[in-house]
Amino acid sequence: MSRQPSRPRGTPNGPMPIRALEWAPSGALRILDQTRLPTEERWLELDRTEAVVEAIQMLRVRGAPAIGVAAAMGLAASLLKATGHPRDQFMDLLATRITTLEQSRPTAVNIAWAMARMRRAAEGAGGAGGATTAAAFEALHAEAEAIRREDEAMCRAMGEAGQTLVRPIKGPRENGEAVRILTHCNTGALATAGIGTALGIVHVAHERGTPLHVWVDETRPLLQGSRLTAWELGKAGIAHTVITDGAAASLMHRGRVDLVLVGADRIAANGDTANKIGSYPLAIVARSHGVPFHVVAPSSTFDSACATGDDIPIEERGAAEVARPFGTRLVPEGSAVWNPAFDVTPAGLITGWVTESGIVQPPF
Amino acid sequence: MSRQPSRPRGTPNGPMPIRALEWAPSGALRILDQTRLPTEERWLELDRTEAVVEAIQMLRVRGAPAIGVAAAMGLAASLLKATGHPRDQFMDLLATRITTLEQSRPTAVNIAWAMARMRRAAEGAGGAGGATTAAAFEALHAEAEAIRREDEAMCRAMGEAGQTLVRPIKGPRENGEAVRILTHCNTGALATAGIGTALGIVHVAHERGTPLHVWVDETRPLLQGSRLTAWELGKAGIAHTVITDGAAASLMHRGRVDLVLVGADRIAANGDTANKIGSYPLAIVARSHGVPFHVVAPSSTFDSACATGDDIPIEERGAAEVARPFGTRLVPEGSAVWNPAFDVTPAGLITGWVTESGIVQPPF
Repeated sequence: MSRQPSRPRGTPNGPMPIRALEWAPSGALRILDQTRLPTEERWLELDRTEAVVEAIQMLRVRGAPAIGVAAAMGLAASLLKATGHPRDQFMDLLATRITTLEQSRPTAVNIAWAMARMRRAAEGAGGAGGATTAAAFEALHAEAEAIRREDEAMCRAMGEAGQTLVRPIKGPRENGEAVRILTHCNTGALATAGIGTALGIVHVAHERGTPLHVWVDETRPLLQGSRLTAWELGKAGIAHTVITDGAAASLMHRGRVDLVLVGADRIAANGDTANKIGSYPLAIVARSHGVPFHVVAPSSTFDSACATGDDIPIEERGAAEVARPFGTRLVPEGSAVWNPAFDVTPAGLITGWVTESGIVQPPF
Repeated sequence: MSRQPSRPRGTPNGPMPIRALEWAPSGALRILDQTRLPTEERWLELDRTEAVVEAIQMLRVRGAPAIGVAAAMGLAASLLKATGHPRDQFMDLLATRITTLEQSRPTAVNIAWAMARMRRAAEGAGGAGGATTAAAFEALHAEAEAIRREDEAMCRAMGEAGQTLVRPIKGPRENGEAVRILTHCNTGALATAGIGTALGIVHVAHERGTPLHVWVDETRPLLQGSRLTAWELGKAGIAHTVITDGAAASLMHRGRVDLVLVGADRIAANGDTANKIGSYPLAIVARSHGVPFHVVAPSSTFDSACATGDDIPIEERGAAEVARPFGTRLVPEGSAVWNPAFDVTPAGLITGWVTESGIVQPPF
């Protein structure tokens, strides 16, 4: 079993400011509780399915790639105490827990993708009919670790593939030669098992000395931009400025944005892309100003079973995230709230999809 | 001197749920402190220029028409104790206070418009060279009251002029026949001396029995939509739902918005319109979905001295409104924030301008 250091690592010369998901020495899934950021760095150890589901639903761990990895690692961790069961009983437990995890959040396809891999790994362990419970558990643990490592590697590959988009711009202007990137939500080390998707491109560019300035959409309602992306960029020493979501258009009108980079929760076969609420209007606004808008996502986010964005289920969350942001009631009692967590950007508004295999176009 | 009731009036059958600006029995300006809404209805009596400026800058009273009226009434109230001064001294004091009030907020033109009227009223009082201090004060008080009453009347006229935009829609669909109006910020009784600008149209339609559903953009950073518009609509018994600013595009994509109505802080000669941050992206998104986007504003908001939106000064406010929304720090220490309070929507994205004289087009 992989043993990771139990504290977040300082990496002053490296691109990864934090690792948000790791194996605890006990074999549990260890996560940084993102609901406490930026004010508190609290780590949680999860070894029960219910705790993993709660952490995913409450967004203690979030980001499409990260919740796929967390579901896989959490599933393996939850089965550590079941290794004494007969194989049939173990496999029944596995099937039940996979179903529970798959239903935890509907929009991102990464959990379903990870669970399908875990199911196949357990079923294939030890050859036809010959597997022991121990072999099935070992196979599950190895698969979860493989999913984690592959996500880490895909982040690095996306980060490198995206470097063609962030060439330094010569000539006198605001911020010298800095490439000015606008991003929405959090798509960095906190959203993946590696350096991130959209923000992974930023981390690699910074590592290579490209001058950068990142405009951070605060991303209502849960403020993953101001709470998480700004925190992560600050840790990495990357210049950035937080704005309200409604201010992005003013920046573009003033010519202060060179490109938009966002992540994705599910990408349909035709390229329609579900991502954090507010991504779709950002894409419309970018198009109207001639600013390139790229989606950055690993292959685990592409869902060929969805022909178009109309097939992607959109999670609607509770009113409190809008009505009582962080403890203070700001919507009157009795007022209704509609709180979709995601929207779908039509493929036609997206300049390109950066994947671990390079920048691609639909059909994928 | 007009004497208003000292409590907000319940008007179950009328269109105006609240009057946010009135004369106190003492002659002071009496305002509902909008920073405390929706949780507390606290009234303030202001009789010093500094207190009026503070209330305007802290957005205890806000909305372009309302701050014009508040500046005029507050100026008169502040001079009540100076009526024993010689006329020259009184006029010097008046000039100083007008300058102070004019500088309190830069974007809305209504304060400068109201102050120009007050200056002319005092100078013209009692005929050339013959005015006493008492006559000048009486003229100022009468002018402030005229500005208040005219704003009230203009709201009613705009509300009626806008009824052609909100005809009930026949045929089976969501919410029956309701006209589904999306609005941004607060443009109602809390933003004016009357029933409002954009929301005045809603109040009149409701009064006439038109079925309505109002989508309320929460309007970050200061949440005038969720805190004020939802509160005002709730008081008036008008169906409404609060959304984050980033969710408006999803509603339009689903065909759930019939028109957008917003107010304005300053309208240039060519029709470019400054309004609350987030209005410009909303106009872009409305255009891309074929949803009409109307600006509703009285003549006091039109500024022929600005040829285009580029001439309109845009107020930039402090970081705390974004970084510490309502007490909780949500942006890390050390992260920069850019917080423009307004943006400019180009005239080409605006379907029409509803004024007290009807629906007009530039040049005005």
